[in-house]
Formats: sequence, structure tokens, C-alpha cells
Amino acid sequence: VLIAQEVTREHVLGKNAVVIDVLRATSTIGTALKNGCTAVFPVVSPEEAFEKAGTFDKGSCILGGERGGIKVPGFDTGNSPLEYSSDAVTGRSLVMTTTNGTLAINNSSAAKHLFLASLLNASAVAKALLKLPEDVMLVCSGTEGIFTIEDAYCAGMIAHILKTEGKAQLTDMAEACRIIYEMYLGRPLDLLYLATHGQKLNRIGFADDVVYCSQTDLLDVVPVYENGRITKL
Amino acid sequence: VLIAQEVTREHVLGKNAVVIDVLRATSTIGTALKNGCTAVFPVVSPEEAFEKAGTFDKGSCILGGERGGIKVPGFDTGNSPLEYSSDAVTGRSLVMTTTNGTLAINNSSAAKHLFLASLLNASAVAKALLKLPEDVMLVCSGTEGIFTIEDAYCAGMIAHILKTEGKAQLTDMAEACRIIYEMYLGRPLDLLYLATHGQKLNRIGFADDVVYCSQTDLLDVVPVYENGRITKL
Repeated sequence: VLIAQEVTREHVLGKNAVVIDVLRATSTIGTALKNGCTAVFPVVSPEEAFEKAGTFDKGSCILGGERGGIKVPGFDTGNSPLEYSSDAVTGRSLVMTTTNGTLAINNSSAAKHLFLASLLNASAVAKALLKLPEDVMLVCSGTEGIFTIEDAYCAGMIAHILKTEGKAQLTDMAEACRIIYEMYLGRPLDLLYLATHGQKLNRIGFADDVVYCSQTDLLDVVPVYENGRITKL
Repeated sequence: VLIAQEVTREHVLGKNAVVIDVLRATSTIGTALKNGCTAVFPVVSPEEAFEKAGTFDKGSCILGGERGGIKVPGFDTGNSPLEYSSDAVTGRSLVMTTTNGTLAINNSSAAKHLFLASLLNASAVAKALLKLPEDVMLVCSGTEGIFTIEDAYCAGMIAHILKTEGKAQLTDMAEACRIIYEMYLGRPLDLLYLATHGQKLNRIGFADDVVYCSQTDLLDVVPVYENGRITKL
């Protein structure tokens, strides 16, 4: 388990990696793919996002993402999973940039398989990992380089499944995440309300997002990143 | 809460810092001071330790520390707290170098007040912090840059006291440590046996050290670092 900013090519080479950004990038991307979005293109900056979106036919692509939690000016959508309904995304591509999640994805892109997890699909991702022989690096996106407890909880849920069903050896950090998961077992929303970033989202008008993102195993979808694009496994 | 290698001058400036290395540097230093050692001089390398020790009168100084958990060749003592009895240390200075603990101390030396904590004296250190107005940075020494769960547990114990008695606001990382503390409340030895470094010490012949270091609040001593030396507050 590492924070996004700590991850280097060497950390993930030859391993499988899972990028976690519960609030909200990986919850949003999982929801968009579930609702019929054909592929998500994660980019690091808004400038890059405009450029990338320009390469698609008009109407076939949505431009989404945030800075400071708020939709980037000129974008179609922000980083709220509730914006990515079937009506909005079916048959379309999504070009996306978020403060922490897309950075974590780019820093982890040298992994053998790179999955995206949130509470919405943690068990589905764990199940996919159990079928693969490689070691696993869980990458918590965090908030601007700072550890966030909601990503640790999600990492702990995946570590718990890998340990109990796959006999994985956990590092101290993975074990710590597992303990956080165990302490808040069945109470994910309490954990999101304890989290600094959950409190911030509540303050700036995204209380519904926090509730939505707390739904454990709502989605049976495994987003996988390969060659610059995220699709369903 | 940060890991030793992450700490910079900016992180601790104007704050109070607590360096934690449960297995074993801060347990050992606390024990030595309790048993009558006059001052501990933490240095980063064995070379620097030999040099520093040369500045003392013969017999007035002990040279202690480890690399890879084992006593440095030519040193008087290793990093086992059980070596630092009253007979060994009373009235003497101690020049010390350890892989992680002394690095954490040096990286945190710009703090307003810099204390050293282990499970042996966590409550004594928390009590001293409660009397001071500054924010607190808890520095987990870890093992070669890697998070260790025993230091997180100790940080969680201090965070718990600061939150409940001092109404401190905890970061997500401090809250995570507090949850680990809560989960293993009253079972510190179980936690040390879960810890990767506790298991290693058991394997290389230091099982007694692990048991000794698990004793919560055995010592009523607050080691404080100032100008290159650690003394009792």
C-alpha cells in the first residue's frame, strides 16, 4: 500500500496495481463504465484534457473532472458519480482529469495489470486479483500527497479478501488498512463522515456523493487501464 | 503523523515533534535515561559515533547502536534496551546510532520541542504535550522508509490521549493510528507479534526485547532532544 505521490515505476513493475480514490475518481469512473461509457481516458491536466477531447468526433466524447472538488470551467461534467448516468454516457468516451486519482493512475501505469477500485466495486476487483499470480500494490490516491482514511479503508477491504481467500502476506501498511476496515466493518458511511475529505465534500455541496460512494459492492465492474485508456475487464 | 524519511524542516517548524521507534531506539533511549544515563547523543553513522565517542574521557561514555538489528562491531552495546541497566549506564553518556530512530531524530530536529516516545513512556510524553500550546507532529521511524505498525500503534495511543484530554483535531493518518491503537487496546504484545519488525526480532534472537518493549507506561520519563543531546525533561 502506497500513496499516489510515493509510487514509482519500480514499485509496480512486474506487479498488479490497484488505484483507489473512493472520493471520488474511481467511484465515478466505475459508475461511468457500468452505465455504458465505452472508455475513459485519464489525463493529468485540464489543458491535456481539452487537447485529447479535440481528437474525438463531436458528441462522441464527454470532458469531465475537477480541480478543488469543483467542475473545471468549460468541461461537460465534474467529478460527481451522479452525473454519469446511462443517458449521459452510453456509447460515449470520457476524457477525465482529477486532482489525485488520475495522477495515481499515471504513476502506476507500469504495472502488469492496473485496476481501479472504490467501495462500489472492491470485491469485484479483489476477485479479479485472486485469479492472477503476481504480487499486488494497492495505491491510495490520497489528497494532494496526504493519506486519506477512506482510501485506506478500501485498501483494507481488498487486503482482507486477499488475505482470507488468497492467503496473501500483508505488509504492515496493508495490515493497518485491514484493521481500519475491520473497525468500520458494515459502517462505511460512518468512516466517510470521519474522513477529512468526506467532511469537505459535505461542506461544498456534495453530500449525496458521499452517501453514494459509501455503497459497498454496488457495481460488478472491474475498470482496467491499458495504453492510456480504461475499459471494463 | 509522518514516516521518518518524509519529514522535512518545514513539517516540524513551529510545532512540537515526537519521534517514535518502538522497536527499539526510543524504547532503549528512554530506558537508558531512566537508569541514570546522563545524556544520549544520537548520530547518523557508525563513523560519526566513533568520532563523537573519542571526545569523551575514557570510561565516561558508552558507544551503542545497531545496523541490521545487530551491534555495530567495536561498539560497547547494541540496540537492546535490556543492555542499558543502571550498572551499565549510571553517570555515563551514551553515543548512539540506529538505522531508523536516529535518522528520524535528526530529520525532526527543527521542531520547537522534540520528544522521544515508545510504548514504555507514551502517556508521560502525551502529558508533556498537553501542557504546550503548539501543534504536534508524530514521527514514526519505520524501517528503512517503510511504515511499521508498532510505531503507528504508539502514535495512535498519543493521538488518542491528545484527542480525548486535549481536544486535539486529528489528521486522517492520526485517526488511522488511533483506530489501530483502539483495535489492539490492552493487547500491545499481540500487535508487536503481528508487526513485521517484531517477527524479525523474534527470529534473530531478540524475543525478550519485544516483550520488554510491549510494556505500556512502564517509565515515567520524557526524553527531550536539544542541541544534539537527549536528556530527561
